[in-house]
Amino acid sequence: MDGVLADVYAQFKEYEINEFGTTKPMEKIFGKPEHEAYPNAYKYVNSVGFFINAPIIEGSVEALKILNEGYNLFVVSSALEFPNSLKEKYDWLNKWFPFITWQQIVFCGLKTIINGDIIIDDHFKNLDYFKGQTILFSQHHNYGQDNKNHQRVNNWDEILTLLA
Amino acid sequence: MDGVLADVYAQFKEYEINEFGTTKPMEKIFGKPEHEAYPNAYKYVNSVGFFINAPIIEGSVEALKILNEGYNLFVVSSALEFPNSLKEKYDWLNKWFPFITWQQIVFCGLKTIINGDIIIDDHFKNLDYFKGQTILFSQHHNYGQDNKNHQRVNNWDEILTLLA
Repeated sequence: MDGVLADVYAQFKEYEINEFGTTKPMEKIFGKPEHEAYPNAYKYVNSVGFFINAPIIEGSVEALKILNEGYNLFVVSSALEFPNSLKEKYDWLNKWFPFITWQQIVFCGLKTIINGDIIIDDHFKNLDYFKGQTILFSQHHNYGQDNKNHQRVNNWDEILTLLA
Repeated sequence: MDGVLADVYAQFKEYEINEFGTTKPMEKIFGKPEHEAYPNAYKYVNSVGFFINAPIIEGSVEALKILNEGYNLFVVSSALEFPNSLKEKYDWLNKWFPFITWQQIVFCGLKTIINGDIIIDDHFKNLDYFKGQTILFSQHHNYGQDNKNHQRVNNWDEILTLLA
């Protein structure tokens, strides 16, 4: 969800601009983990409104609408680290993806318990343990690392080319 | 979680007594699905406080403490049907099972996406699709149905005898 459907990185940048009047240029955060790229990330994700107001990643609504027709689709989010955000994350999904039913949503801690044929994720920690096909959604934090045979895509159009 | 750790059935009975002054005797609800056994179940589970105040199923805290040492344990709950309950369910788990970390919690819609070696559940709909060992936790609603090779247990002591 975060970094694939919800643009939490744009949201981090907006919170930094609100707090400091500035945000690090993209080239300074390439390959850096979130807590280094956005030192106050933990504070931001724990503030009321962070998730419900997160912008949408371009093309994701149209793409999920298409994939939802041909696949047994689930939205899986490591949401339990921020239990106060659970309802916000659910409401955000309902707002942007009203065609995704409650049966298709999973809020977990570790994604190692999730079974599936294909995963789309921006974090190696989730892709590396997955038994099926792994698609790495490009985000600044996942550049410059070994991509361990995951297929990198840069946007939802590339995912549709692969899967639709 | 519900019917295995949290005694939601005792909670339904208490809500019925509060609403009607009475509740159906156990022999009248054996083998009946929840919405027949407790006609106002849907209203109850959607009321604030239903989950956070649910009693604990006897022996479950001590048993999970033991199993948590020897197994890679997850608590999986079909919680997304009641999105307003997400935080209550998390708080309830924290109150009774403080040794279960956020990494070990999964709130989902369908449990068909969950991977594992052993499942303990009171619903056939969750056990029937599971690929590993299936343990049926006895509750009034799951009597009188074909148990489809799931191993029936009546309490947490019997689970410990099987697994500890």
